[in-house]
Amino acid sequence: MNFLDDLEIFGNISKAENFLDSCKTDSFLFSLVMSYTQTCEIPGITFAGADSSMIQFTPPADAEYLHYGYCKTIDKIPMTPDGIPTPGLLTKTALESASIPHLVVNAGSKISPQLPFIETGLSLGKNISLEPAMSNSEVIHAVDYGRIVGHSLASMVNCLVIGETIPGGTTTALAVLKGLGFDAKVSSSIPNNPISLKNRIVSSALNRLNSDNPYDVIAYVGDPMIAFVAGMLSSASEVSKVLLAGGTQMAAVLSFASKLGFNANNTAIGTTSYITQDKNTNFRTIISDIADIPAFAVDPGLKNSKFSGLQAYSNGFAKEGVGAGGSIIASMLKTGNISNFLGLCEKEYRRLYSLNN
Amino acid sequence: MNFLDDLEIFGNISKAENFLDSCKTDSFLFSLVMSYTQTCEIPGITFAGADSSMIQFTPPADAEYLHYGYCKTIDKIPMTPDGIPTPGLLTKTALESASIPHLVVNAGSKISPQLPFIETGLSLGKNISLEPAMSNSEVIHAVDYGRIVGHSLASMVNCLVIGETIPGGTTTALAVLKGLGFDAKVSSSIPNNPISLKNRIVSSALNRLNSDNPYDVIAYVGDPMIAFVAGMLSSASEVSKVLLAGGTQMAAVLSFASKLGFNANNTAIGTTSYITQDKNTNFRTIISDIADIPAFAVDPGLKNSKFSGLQAYSNGFAKEGVGAGGSIIASMLKTGNISNFLGLCEKEYRRLYSLNN
Repeated sequence: MNFLDDLEIFGNISKAENFLDSCKTDSFLFSLVMSYTQTCEIPGITFAGADSSMIQFTPPADAEYLHYGYCKTIDKIPMTPDGIPTPGLLTKTALESASIPHLVVNAGSKISPQLPFIETGLSLGKNISLEPAMSNSEVIHAVDYGRIVGHSLASMVNCLVIGETIPGGTTTALAVLKGLGFDAKVSSSIPNNPISLKNRIVSSALNRLNSDNPYDVIAYVGDPMIAFVAGMLSSASEVSKVLLAGGTQMAAVLSFASKLGFNANNTAIGTTSYITQDKNTNFRTIISDIADIPAFAVDPGLKNSKFSGLQAYSNGFAKEGVGAGGSIIASMLKTGNISNFLGLCEKEYRRLYSLNN
Repeated sequence: MNFLDDLEIFGNISKAENFLDSCKTDSFLFSLVMSYTQTCEIPGITFAGADSSMIQFTPPADAEYLHYGYCKTIDKIPMTPDGIPTPGLLTKTALESASIPHLVVNAGSKISPQLPFIETGLSLGKNISLEPAMSNSEVIHAVDYGRIVGHSLASMVNCLVIGETIPGGTTTALAVLKGLGFDAKVSSSIPNNPISLKNRIVSSALNRLNSDNPYDVIAYVGDPMIAFVAGMLSSASEVSKVLLAGGTQMAAVLSFASKLGFNANNTAIGTTSYITQDKNTNFRTIISDIADIPAFAVDPGLKNSKFSGLQAYSNGFAKEGVGAGGSIIASMLKTGNISNFLGLCEKEYRRLYSLNN
């Protein structure tokens, strides 16, 4: 896998070249922000978690798998019954291939992971179809603590990569983007994206929102991850390069951060080509509408896998998450290229499959 | 303040020169490990905290003061009634003068700080005069999580500085050093060091210890900070330089780490000259007995202060804590020297004094 073949660049192209040039041989840190929105408990809304009672364990399980290579909170590594693994597999493979360190941040997860993590004291987000996600003071707390964490982490490295794990997060992302005035269509971890269900939830949430104040938008229809990571970006981008690692959820972060203020010259967004090729989303347009920053989409190459569980990514399953796309991009930036990325993923998939069975 | 005048070097001198040379212009991170031992509740044992009910708030207050410049958990910045401030004042002044970032780790504090911090899930240490400090499985947890945190933080910087805030910690440090076979005399935050009280506590604790297994020693007579920081050192020193910032408490960490294994070529200990000049301690001898590493003692120069609260440090009060000595050394290493350190401390003392009154 190498840059020219597998990386698509859009948004502000000249800034993209600057960003890529200045990151080469730099020190990177991957931060994984765990969170939770009760919106994910609406039946049919998410693919994360083998069944509904397991969804709450997905964030700690992703964090534990990334760190230990196995999970402690649950017995198995997140994988669907038909063998489609968590996108954390791509993240872990990429970060390890380039020796990029990681830290886990708990920004409102329902369950804490069994490893050291940065604690923020944030509560989980409520179901936006029923009630506001958070109080305004909780949004302020999330932004303030995000600013502290972003500044601290960015002070230690040249490029801070930020990924997320929050089941149901594409629905709150859609609501935030619409609430802030962007005509968004969001992605999903399911190929038959439950668009009408999402739109119904988002509409009912936006109906209760009687304000265009960005803090009110997050409080009514957002989630703690969006508030926290926007705070991280606003301070971190003053100190170092920041790569938002994700698709439409990071677009929502960017939309709120554009209201808080951030340094667009130090910021980029990176995701997988499974997001940009998804006809149900308008990722490229949304990013351009929100901010004048570069955007990257990398093709992880899973369509050529001999394992159907990995191939499924190119057929619209999972697509992105746990900062997979951004991690691959950061690893390519650090090492020049990733030799045999598909082979490394398949080796890890084989290990993980045998652990689970 | 400059190196040649204010820094005393002992232990392994040739390693000291290597350490100092390789740290110049490097990237530093200061980590503050908060903890608690109920041993501090024994009347007369510690100076940290204006009165006994306040002692438990000292660790979060130190962390909050270092970060915000004021405290959130309590109203006032830790200072005795006669105006002797927390050694955190030296730490804060030094780190800010050299723009060294910091992170807070909670390794068994009774009270969590009101800021983002690395959570480890560790419980506080019990009063060693009455019962074992921790279970063996808690010691293993502390070491394991210390290893994870040490590796993560050291991967991001070239020199990891580790300080502590644990009231009553010199007593558990004395017990650990003796339990591991070192003939230690420890320092205190009180000029009339309650030596006979400490020795009585330590003797009664060691009497219940029927093992020379290092994990048993920590479990019976130690505290969570010693276990955790020893774990940090063992992994971090494989990745980067590590400066243990403290006096006799860091000597106890070193004694346990020498049983776990660590890279002595990447490790140094740094403290204030108030520790090395204390006739009640044998700091230099202990360090040499434990490990073949360089040791540094810096004179913060407070004897020349116009404020009696700062002058008191040179008369045996407080002396060290919150990684003060190591922070000054790291700041001198990063910037070459600290221009007018006393003036900066006095300015901060004036601000702090007016906040408190």
